[in-house]
Amino acid sequence: MKNLLSILILLLSMTLFSQVEKIEPPFWWSEMHNPELQLMVYGKNIAHFDVAFSNRIQITDIQKTENPNYLFVTINTKNVSPGTYEIQFSEDNKIVSTKSYEFKSRRENSAQRKGFDSSDLIYLIMPDRFANGNPDNDNTDDTLEKVNREELSGRHGGDIQGIIDHLDYLDDLGVTAIWSTPLLEDNEPVFSYHTYAQSDYYRIDPRFGTNEDYKRLTSEMHKRDMKLLMDYVTNHWGSKHWMIQDLPSKDWIHYWENGENGFQRSSYRMTTQFDSNASEADKEACMNGWFDTTMPDINQKNPLVLTYMIQNAIWWVEFADLDGFRVDTYSYNDKDGIAEWTKTIMDEYPNFNIAGEVWMHNQAQMAYWQKDSKIGAIDNYNSHLPTVMDFTLHDAILEMFAEDEQGWDKGMIKAYENFVNDFLYPDINNIFVFAGNHDTNRISEIYGSDINTYKMIMTLIATVRGIPQVYYGDELGMVGNRDLKGDGDIRRDFPGGWEGDPMNAFTAEGRTAEQTEFFEFSKKLFNWRKSKSVIHSGKTMQFVPENNVYVYFRYHTDDKVMVIINNNPKAQTLDLKRFAEMIGAEKYGNEMLSDERIALEDTLTIDGKTSMIIEF
Amino acid sequence: MKNLLSILILLLSMTLFSQVEKIEPPFWWSEMHNPELQLMVYGKNIAHFDVAFSNRIQITDIQKTENPNYLFVTINTKNVSPGTYEIQFSEDNKIVSTKSYEFKSRRENSAQRKGFDSSDLIYLIMPDRFANGNPDNDNTDDTLEKVNREELSGRHGGDIQGIIDHLDYLDDLGVTAIWSTPLLEDNEPVFSYHTYAQSDYYRIDPRFGTNEDYKRLTSEMHKRDMKLLMDYVTNHWGSKHWMIQDLPSKDWIHYWENGENGFQRSSYRMTTQFDSNASEADKEACMNGWFDTTMPDINQKNPLVLTYMIQNAIWWVEFADLDGFRVDTYSYNDKDGIAEWTKTIMDEYPNFNIAGEVWMHNQAQMAYWQKDSKIGAIDNYNSHLPTVMDFTLHDAILEMFAEDEQGWDKGMIKAYENFVNDFLYPDINNIFVFAGNHDTNRISEIYGSDINTYKMIMTLIATVRGIPQVYYGDELGMVGNRDLKGDGDIRRDFPGGWEGDPMNAFTAEGRTAEQTEFFEFSKKLFNWRKSKSVIHSGKTMQFVPENNVYVYFRYHTDDKVMVIINNNPKAQTLDLKRFAEMIGAEKYGNEMLSDERIALEDTLTIDGKTSMIIEF
Repeated sequence: MKNLLSILILLLSMTLFSQVEKIEPPFWWSEMHNPELQLMVYGKNIAHFDVAFSNRIQITDIQKTENPNYLFVTINTKNVSPGTYEIQFSEDNKIVSTKSYEFKSRRENSAQRKGFDSSDLIYLIMPDRFANGNPDNDNTDDTLEKVNREELSGRHGGDIQGIIDHLDYLDDLGVTAIWSTPLLEDNEPVFSYHTYAQSDYYRIDPRFGTNEDYKRLTSEMHKRDMKLLMDYVTNHWGSKHWMIQDLPSKDWIHYWENGENGFQRSSYRMTTQFDSNASEADKEACMNGWFDTTMPDINQKNPLVLTYMIQNAIWWVEFADLDGFRVDTYSYNDKDGIAEWTKTIMDEYPNFNIAGEVWMHNQAQMAYWQKDSKIGAIDNYNSHLPTVMDFTLHDAILEMFAEDEQGWDKGMIKAYENFVNDFLYPDINNIFVFAGNHDTNRISEIYGSDINTYKMIMTLIATVRGIPQVYYGDELGMVGNRDLKGDGDIRRDFPGGWEGDPMNAFTAEGRTAEQTEFFEFSKKLFNWRKSKSVIHSGKTMQFVPENNVYVYFRYHTDDKVMVIINNNPKAQTLDLKRFAEMIGAEKYGNEMLSDERIALEDTLTIDGKTSMIIEF
Repeated sequence: MKNLLSILILLLSMTLFSQVEKIEPPFWWSEMHNPELQLMVYGKNIAHFDVAFSNRIQITDIQKTENPNYLFVTINTKNVSPGTYEIQFSEDNKIVSTKSYEFKSRRENSAQRKGFDSSDLIYLIMPDRFANGNPDNDNTDDTLEKVNREELSGRHGGDIQGIIDHLDYLDDLGVTAIWSTPLLEDNEPVFSYHTYAQSDYYRIDPRFGTNEDYKRLTSEMHKRDMKLLMDYVTNHWGSKHWMIQDLPSKDWIHYWENGENGFQRSSYRMTTQFDSNASEADKEACMNGWFDTTMPDINQKNPLVLTYMIQNAIWWVEFADLDGFRVDTYSYNDKDGIAEWTKTIMDEYPNFNIAGEVWMHNQAQMAYWQKDSKIGAIDNYNSHLPTVMDFTLHDAILEMFAEDEQGWDKGMIKAYENFVNDFLYPDINNIFVFAGNHDTNRISEIYGSDINTYKMIMTLIATVRGIPQVYYGDELGMVGNRDLKGDGDIRRDFPGGWEGDPMNAFTAEGRTAEQTEFFEFSKKLFNWRKSKSVIHSGKTMQFVPENNVYVYFRYHTDDKVMVIINNNPKAQTLDLKRFAEMIGAEKYGNEMLSDERIALEDTLTIDGKTSMIIEF
């Protein structure tokens, strides 16, 4: 009888082990800076078994959660050579199952990889809307939402192959880096195209391609000296994530007892992160509230979660050979958790770069979030985040070019006033400068597709300090109105990205005359910027705009560039004596946009709604 | 012949000495913290003579300027006892003239005088427009502009006696401190009533009274436990100042070669003070430009000027027994000079207080100017200025009460968002909170004399952190529109300040029913505030406004005050559970404005456009 029971238990155990579903990370690398590795083992009742590693690999910690289907096993990987090792699961000292686990060799200089920086020009792509390189993966059996190009909020079929197919187009345009919105699996039944409700953090959405396709993307980009930023979402996972469906513990997410399925919408009041007068209730309402109904808010105070996400991010850097992260809704995260996430990744890759979405309307508040911020330090906070985004410049861009008359705070004064606060940022070169992204109205929509305004905006973006970021299609004057038609309208398909499209703007001959003017201007400007170290890292000197004309210089020891943006509809004549500090004894300069030689004595006249870039 | 020449020279010398016109400061005090004293001696050709002091007083430095009519003599006053000493002027070792100079004894505890602070409520007066206590001094022989009450921008005759006469009114209202706009002589032929173009820094304008009257004002105020702030102007002097008429050196002021009489208007771009991208030309255009045509810009980089102004300020503290300064256009000054001015005064009086007018629209920029600012430190700057002014709160007050519907950034959210940045200030209790001053539109003009709006505004001003500052006449609902009618209209005469005025709002019986409602509300609120240390120095906890209702608490160990401002026109019912962190187990509170006992369980309903102040 006793033997029978043992056999039954053994059989039961074997059955259980046939259900071990996942070990994450699925593999790892030798010789990482941080020798600790936390393996999440998932399988029916896995917590009931003992676990050990073959050969020299030391288990330093095992944690169990409320849910017996999880085991979190921490090992010390120091001195672990590349190869495949065995994980042994046992009960009553009997090994009942084994799983193999691989340590790979790292790429040469992987730890020293150089992230994107201010020498780059970043092109933001929504992959579902850019180009459909592989129509075979438009629908897959294991994903819920099917392709429907007629639906503004539906999946349209764009994919990684579509990006790869048009890298030459981007290279030609002068793009040196791509930020693609998330590519990991999002298995929501609707709105899955934006991919911000991710359901598997170790898998590229099969409608975009495979993990290997993603690796091929970076490989193809690196051949062209282009960099890839992964859009990483730490704040929330998708409701269809397999772990959300079978939570390791209730505190894996912020579960609101009074909400349906734990949901309570975030207050979005991010200022509660640092407001010394804020209540705990309000802090929680923002940081623990959900970004949306399908986006359970992740609890980064739980060390198991945090480690899971740190390792996942590092896994993608190593696996796909990434050049940077853009982190979604950075300032909604638990601030200590996200700082640890950021610091741990940067410790692993000291020359890497990470940009955080810190969507605020006040420079002190944005500067708070940058690494080594003196403003953060007031609150004893250091995010360790190298790069933030110049949302106040974006605010200014949305308004100032429609203000033909300069008032005390109108017109180009708005740009000027943005830069007066540069001193608040600890690293002013590490800031995205942009005229739009996937969450904002299209600039050509705002400014009625006016090419002159576009040229002024792009001149600004491409010549001020920071890292210019351009939104796909803006280089063609693409329009879209979020306020009237919703997000889908600012995320229209790139013309020519789909077989059979009536026009193909990826090719010179496929563009309309208007698109050609937008594109050729952009191409000239962006390519010029590539080699201009004075733009990448020079200092700035700006002058108070007069009559709606903004003049600033970028300069370093060897080089100077004078930028003039005349937002006045009328031609303006500048008295150049005012700029003597910068012009010095120079008599001539070369205007880049027109390729003309310009006299720098006495006065200079510039047409209305025009910009000039003068090198000397 | 030689003898005759000697006699002639001697006679000439004697003649010269009969013209020594001024020694400034005119007297000084023994036992000051800083033993150095710079005497400015003014007289025709004075620089040609030697100078010495009788008895133990050591001259440490003598400086001459381009203009031979000045001598700057620095002496060491350490161990100089009170009494009168002789200054000897000589030529060829012969004493040709002597002048006496007095050192007075200081008041007891003068050095330890306590400045205004957040326990105070400051009432801002324009003395020409408040009350005419002495009609005999309306015009004087030695001042150019004569009284003309019909002229909005003319002198109306108000004076120091008028303030003294109504101290009981202010005491009754709950005022504990007065900031009067400048009282020093302004001898411009027009617009002299505002007194910001001062022509003698050691003389009260005779149309306001005498120096002794000014001393009597503080004496009368101190009897009532009230404090006086002097409005000090460091940035510019009046064009009629006797030293401007006979400049010690051209660099005493910023003289613009291309301007008429050296005038060039300031660009007013104060952000050039810290903008790391600013050009020198733009910095000079702001800081060295003149505030107005009659206001030559003083060069605080000249150490003789700076010392003159430091000593002048200290002289007034000692002479008139002052409790603080309000410094005009603080951020237009040479930033190092004004920091030294401020620090030297504060070193002399460690418990004193000085408020600077830093009229900016961004909290980081305002916080930059407060003593020990971490933001200033980014720029290696420390102003040493204890108190700044909450101009961004003022910006919010001008708009938010007209916004009945709360949007993302509308209505009471504007107040809330002001306070989220409190952490940027090194000393958040040392900040003026105000709904208007002599340079802004009257709040009752903006809000159509609506008593309910006035009540909400005053509730806010009187209960948030900082030092409330009220503008004269606001307590009666006085109106005035600067945009349409100019400065004079927001500086109307206080009704009843002039003999024969048709009404006298200084008395209860002289007020209209409307004025009575404004006054009685203010009186109750201001007097209540006097003894509330939880308001003076308690912490703040604020809650994100919902439905345009703003709730915040002031609290310290023993006391709590809950303030509710319902800017929604409709009554609102609050779920009090949201405030559990502050309400705790309290079941009842006392509502101060209505004197009613309020249940603090479950919910609380508040009428539209109403505020409540609940103590528990």
